[in-house]
Amino acid sequence: MSSFREDGALAVDWVASYLERVRDLPVLSQVEPGEIRAGLPTTPPEAPEPFSAVLEDLDRVLMPGLTHWQSPRFFAYFATTASEPGVLAELLIAGLNQVGILWRTSPALQELEELTVDWLRQLVGLPDTFSGHIEDTASTGVLASVIAARSVNPDRNVLVVSEHAHSVGEKAARLLGLELRKVPTDDEFRMRPDLLGAEDACAVIATIGTTGMASVDPVPEVARRCASAGTWLHVDAAYAGSAAILPELRHHFAGWELADSIGVNPHKWLGVPMDCSVLWTRRLDDFRNAFSLVPEFLRSPDDALNLSEVSIPLGRRFRALKLWAVLRCYGRVGLQERLREHLRLAELFESWVNGEPGWEVVAPRHVSLVCFRREASDEDNERLLDRVNRSGEAFLSHTRLGNRFVLRLAVGNFRTTEDDVRLAWDVLRREAAAI
Amino acid sequence: MSSFREDGALAVDWVASYLERVRDLPVLSQVEPGEIRAGLPTTPPEAPEPFSAVLEDLDRVLMPGLTHWQSPRFFAYFATTASEPGVLAELLIAGLNQVGILWRTSPALQELEELTVDWLRQLVGLPDTFSGHIEDTASTGVLASVIAARSVNPDRNVLVVSEHAHSVGEKAARLLGLELRKVPTDDEFRMRPDLLGAEDACAVIATIGTTGMASVDPVPEVARRCASAGTWLHVDAAYAGSAAILPELRHHFAGWELADSIGVNPHKWLGVPMDCSVLWTRRLDDFRNAFSLVPEFLRSPDDALNLSEVSIPLGRRFRALKLWAVLRCYGRVGLQERLREHLRLAELFESWVNGEPGWEVVAPRHVSLVCFRREASDEDNERLLDRVNRSGEAFLSHTRLGNRFVLRLAVGNFRTTEDDVRLAWDVLRREAAAI
Repeated sequence: MSSFREDGALAVDWVASYLERVRDLPVLSQVEPGEIRAGLPTTPPEAPEPFSAVLEDLDRVLMPGLTHWQSPRFFAYFATTASEPGVLAELLIAGLNQVGILWRTSPALQELEELTVDWLRQLVGLPDTFSGHIEDTASTGVLASVIAARSVNPDRNVLVVSEHAHSVGEKAARLLGLELRKVPTDDEFRMRPDLLGAEDACAVIATIGTTGMASVDPVPEVARRCASAGTWLHVDAAYAGSAAILPELRHHFAGWELADSIGVNPHKWLGVPMDCSVLWTRRLDDFRNAFSLVPEFLRSPDDALNLSEVSIPLGRRFRALKLWAVLRCYGRVGLQERLREHLRLAELFESWVNGEPGWEVVAPRHVSLVCFRREASDEDNERLLDRVNRSGEAFLSHTRLGNRFVLRLAVGNFRTTEDDVRLAWDVLRREAAAI
Repeated sequence: MSSFREDGALAVDWVASYLERVRDLPVLSQVEPGEIRAGLPTTPPEAPEPFSAVLEDLDRVLMPGLTHWQSPRFFAYFATTASEPGVLAELLIAGLNQVGILWRTSPALQELEELTVDWLRQLVGLPDTFSGHIEDTASTGVLASVIAARSVNPDRNVLVVSEHAHSVGEKAARLLGLELRKVPTDDEFRMRPDLLGAEDACAVIATIGTTGMASVDPVPEVARRCASAGTWLHVDAAYAGSAAILPELRHHFAGWELADSIGVNPHKWLGVPMDCSVLWTRRLDDFRNAFSLVPEFLRSPDDALNLSEVSIPLGRRFRALKLWAVLRCYGRVGLQERLREHLRLAELFESWVNGEPGWEVVAPRHVSLVCFRREASDEDNERLLDRVNRSGEAFLSHTRLGNRFVLRLAVGNFRTTEDDVRLAWDVLRREAAAI
């Protein structure tokens, strides 16, 4: 193990140095397609090389091809953080190399997964009728939920989402051969329950914190209609769900306890490295009926549930260990502090936009995402975004609202400071003036 | 970063110490269901704790609940290895926290994934008409392939597998609402192509190295029939596929280049930590048509392919980095050496069983898996397996062949030595004598 200890010290130092300098690296990669691959050999290596050679090529060849999700100046999509305890937990996960298939292939993996998603359930204030497990991404969680929903209502061939729902719903419908129906939204981009039409649907997906502008669907009314139609309700709170650990934001989550399944991604806003998407359900038996290949007559009350019986992959990584490490090393208090700081920074940025002539905020801000634009043509806004991102100083993304091109600034990285947000605002105004 | 450097040193040391002592730990966890969870708090932590507290509880509470996949005395299922460069690459992956969604969200991730799966393609001798990407597990890869197959033949509602195929095929059929048809096998547990009936199937799954006994389906003949029926052929070589890097075993893979898609798991027998399952296809356009939500008219020849357009999850981890690290730090030569040693050890074990009165080898050995049993009742063999596994000295698993209970010893851990295999054999004979 002497080389492992030496190489390990190099790797830890590499990551520490990277995190120390990432603020000053160009946030969006500036390379052209094919450029990174062209810098690497086309044929595989014959003889062994030292691990240090991998680190050297990571710096020399790969670095320009990284878009720095760890940068405090990453404000695109939803900003994320691989926190220090989360990163080190990944080292432990790999070192242990647990493979969760049956309970017995790793009792600790299975039981820690059940426990940590229960801890998170308590933190976000869901009732204990919900139990959960960890999926790789919300895409898979939505797909799994729709599969469970369809197993309950096999004769219903429709999946209902809002116009502003994430494309994962459309993808799930396509992969499963279901018809997708998009419900119109109101003037605050919320699904209109009066147009829901849940009667012939196997499932409805409502969103708390949509991808475009973090709008919040009226879950209580949607849930009521789903219940009376016997339709499965999945609540997608992949991004915003983490904010439910703040009592002052809990009102956005009214009614989500009525859902049949709920997805929240700790890898988005809770400091857990990619990937870690939690899926809770109060209908575990329906998941088990949909996914398990263990026939009923072989089950006994003493049997531990195997998590492979409620999800697509047979084997799973020990992801629970990183969720456990993050929840312990931050605690409820530490996570709340960071999220509150993000909300403060988003509010501050919003106030700057509102106070600046020629700029406008274009959607209500519920959490840490600000949707805004220059009072100018779509083309000018698009050009502005491109100039900002090509500067490398900050990275923002866009959406379309009411057929207008809209800029998005999402605060979500644990290392983002007020100076970082101010720099983004300075760059935006500088580039706007240059157009 | 000072605490990250300090905690990182602790974590590296913890993993190094673990790997130094894992040989002597009970391989199969000896706890009862619920025991691990009962040792942990039922409510989430309020205040932050140091990372060292996580390490302490890993030792104190979780350790008895680990089944040691890293043990050189793990011979169950298919033995795996998280090799040192693979483990350290996971630390880098987490530190960088790349999220592959679109090419631009991490050009390095996307291009290194394309490159490393192409390196592996060359190592296993597939033609360059195949391109690939990385899935989490073979379950997902099979599901994705069947989805692509069904998009090509939407009117065909049947999925064909052999009696001895892995349950992932059955699971994919169930999740997608397809009818599963199981083809009988011959006396060497190989799919019988004369009974294939591919005409009404959207896809056939043939296996090179089945889970039970590593049998090899007659792929050339199956492929011929699939081609003439216009049926998609997926070749599942999740375990044995790694052995194609050995020219002397290449004959097992005759005809796999005729498949439409092929799955091989570097996390099984190639030293890559869980999870890393490679999926190649020579029908990338069909995958893209099945999975991509980017409408055709928006595409241009200059557009980089986004890997999210050919798989279920929208976002992916930087798994390519660990495959890259392992391929470089071992090289073709180093990987071949380790696989040849595993084959030698399996052959040796097989010779011991063959030479011992009262024991028998019950299936032809193609790679590093030996299927054997005592010449005694099923009950005695089952009791034997249980005694061996409860001793903690070695961990084996079982299958059923011709309705008999059969023991399986799979060599696949990079640290397994002749002494470890001999110990397993000593324990087997000792426990058999005690029954």
